Amino acid sequence: MTDTPDDTGRISAERIAQAVVRFRARRPRVHCITNAAATNFTANVLLAAGGVPSMTINPEEVGGFVASADVLLINLGTLDPLRREAIDIAIAAAKSEPKPWVLDPVFVDRSPPRLSLARTLAQRGPAVIRMNADELGALSGARTGDDRDRAGALAQALGVTVARTGAVDFVTDGARTIGISGGYPLMAAVTATGCATTALLAGFLSVEDDAVAAAAACLAFVKTAAERAGEGAAGPGSFVPAFLDALHQLTPEIIGETARLA
Amino acid sequence: MTDTPDDTGRISAERIAQAVVRFRARRPRVHCITNAAATNFTANVLLAAGGVPSMTINPEEVGGFVASADVLLINLGTLDPLRREAIDIAIAAAKSEPKPWVLDPVFVDRSPPRLSLARTLAQRGPAVIRMNADELGALSGARTGDDRDRAGALAQALGVTVARTGAVDFVTDGARTIGISGGYPLMAAVTATGCATTALLAGFLSVEDDAVAAAAACLAFVKTAAERAGEGAAGPGSFVPAFLDALHQLTPEIIGETARLA
Amino acid sequence: MTDTPDDTGRISAERIAQAVVRFRARRPRVHCITNAAATNFTANVLLAAGGVPSMTINPEEVGGFVASADVLLINLGTLDPLRREAIDIAIAAAKSEPKPWVLDPVFVDRSPPRLSLARTLAQRGPAVIRMNADELGALSGARTGDDRDRAGALAQALGVTVARTGAVDFVTDGARTIGISGGYPLMAAVTATGCATTALLAGFLSVEDDAVAAAAACLAFVKTAAERAGEGAAGPGSFVPAFLDALHQLTPEIIGETARLA
Repeated sequence: MTDTPDDTGRISAERIAQAVVRFRARRPRVHCITNAAATNFTANVLLAAGGVPSMTINPEEVGGFVASADVLLINLGTLDPLRREAIDIAIAAAKSEPKPWVLDPVFVDRSPPRLSLARTLAQRGPAVIRMNADELGALSGARTGDDRDRAGALAQALGVTVARTGAVDFVTDGARTIGISGGYPLMAAVTATGCATTALLAGFLSVEDDAVAAAAACLAFVKTAAERAGEGAAGPGSFVPAFLDALHQLTPEIIGETARLA
Repeated sequence: MTDTPDDTGRISAERIAQAVVRFRARRPRVHCITNAAATNFTANVLLAAGGVPSMTINPEEVGGFVASADVLLINLGTLDPLRREAIDIAIAAAKSEPKPWVLDPVFVDRSPPRLSLARTLAQRGPAVIRMNADELGALSGARTGDDRDRAGALAQALGVTVARTGAVDFVTDGARTIGISGGYPLMAAVTATGCATTALLAGFLSVEDDAVAAAAACLAFVKTAAERAGEGAAGPGSFVPAFLDALHQLTPEIIGETARLA
Repeated sequence: MTDTPDDTGRISAERIAQAVVRFRARRPRVHCITNAAATNFTANVLLAAGGVPSMTINPEEVGGFVASADVLLINLGTLDPLRREAIDIAIAAAKSEPKPWVLDPVFVDRSPPRLSLARTLAQRGPAVIRMNADELGALSGARTGDDRDRAGALAQALGVTVARTGAVDFVTDGARTIGISGGYPLMAAVTATGCATTALLAGFLSVEDDAVAAAAACLAFVKTAAERAGEGAAGPGSFVPAFLDALHQLTPEIIGETARLA
């Protein structure tokens, strides 16, 4: 089974390339409940990569949008009562079909009520939780320790896949762990790059059933696009259009070949 | 009357150019109730073209903003209870003067409650309704059939002008129909280009009384700017700044001459 | 004391450069309650310059974010009931420590209820109020007269520092006044440049105790970045990435040397 991650999480360049091919052919509809700073950029990232975003947070409508989408993103940034209500309805709608959904617990390290909500949501069966190191520390309850250990323990406890992004990303379901290196430092000087990555990751779940492989393919795609964008960027301002261009232009073959997995 | 659309909807390059001249001289104030993904980009499109945007959705304030604006945009994206309340107040304020207003029924094909609201609003006398093909299908209630026939019937039934945008745009009031070709495919890979176009179209109503001519002039302007932007763009990321630059820089003469009407 | 503004407000290039050095080293956390059109751009301006933005307007969480931030921005654009509630909680949280906060009374010239709120907030002790000429006219209650006189009187009456931005900016606390020239006209054709400037100014308060010097350093930084960006920009679209790049790249020495104070 060269086409499936083995116990060490190895996946092939070919498999990543194929996931990108299917993403662009399928044009997955991703319904996004996301934060105010990320809304426009997330929609543009999805469109550039070949997906179809919808962004409403209206509780009256969100069930209908989830029903006509392929997958759901729940991002906890700029959480407010309306978003909180919409999140509950949207997850229920996703679970009733069922459709996969992804959780991005933004800034749970900065807000105790948000952390509390994230803990509750994490037990409702997201396919993947995508976090940075600070958020992983808060959600795992283990403020110190190796990130891979904390993420693995959390993934096993919750029965989910955890993606921790940073200078080197990794994905784990507790049994398998895949590291993804590459990328470009300017990513961290642009707002909502993590948020938009999680939305894209959600889209990959509609073309790749194995959540570990879907997350790894998405993160390899993003790292490759960031590297390409960083080559010509003079700073975070010119990085953004170059990153969107790269998401749009990179061939699946280049993405697969450039991906640095470990 | 070479300066007025005839029965076939012909308008001259000169008339389009003159509308752009007046737009830039008048600097129309456009109050926008629009969706979260479109807010920033819509404001930048209006500013680049020479208009003055305001974007509040606060019910307490929206009446005052409409009173001090030239024209009103109602966009139904990311509809929520606050926007819904603000829409009602804003339309009443526009009608009391009266000032023209424009309706953009985003994603009514994806949300039954939004479609229901759009149908009610469409009967309150918008000057123009701007839609894509899917939204036209939903709002007209005729899921199949030629877009021009459906749009013409809808325009006549409501007594409004309908603009349907796509690879080729057209504008109709039921009697006259103008097609606008050109543009650039990358427009569809950037979020909120349609939303921002409708805001710009609203601005043109304050410098051109004939809604068919105003809409055609705006769409010709946008198509020309998109073509210009597409020439040098490497993807949707670099398309956006180039599009805003073109809205700012293109001379009225070039816009008039480039416009491809039929 | 060559390092402190004298009675005429003179500050040295060296002092401006040092403030930028400290900003980048400190990476100030700026909690922003700002408008929908400005949210993404403000976060990107702060990140490009070296700060750390947070943007939630949720009343339940905003106190926690302010507590873990260095400084607070209150921007009154797209004011709605939720923002209004969050503003009250956030200012109370800032004052309880105390931490400095900055007020940006966007469009108070267009909305009587917003003007009324701005007047109340201005008396709660912001360190700096940043306005354009129209907003200054409305807030000062003196619709005519020299801007510097009106700003000086307002600053003295409220015991705050006032920054009025425009083609030439100035900062005054009533006793000292510093003018900052330079910049680039395209700034005015991009939405939220003033809003984002105020957020950056808030960040400078965490590295420079004298509010007049902090505001002058920020405005000199922004003018210098705008000049640099304008050099190669073809319009407002290409100005934006170039402006963010300049905020990220410009050395403190260049900022200090380029600043044109009077």
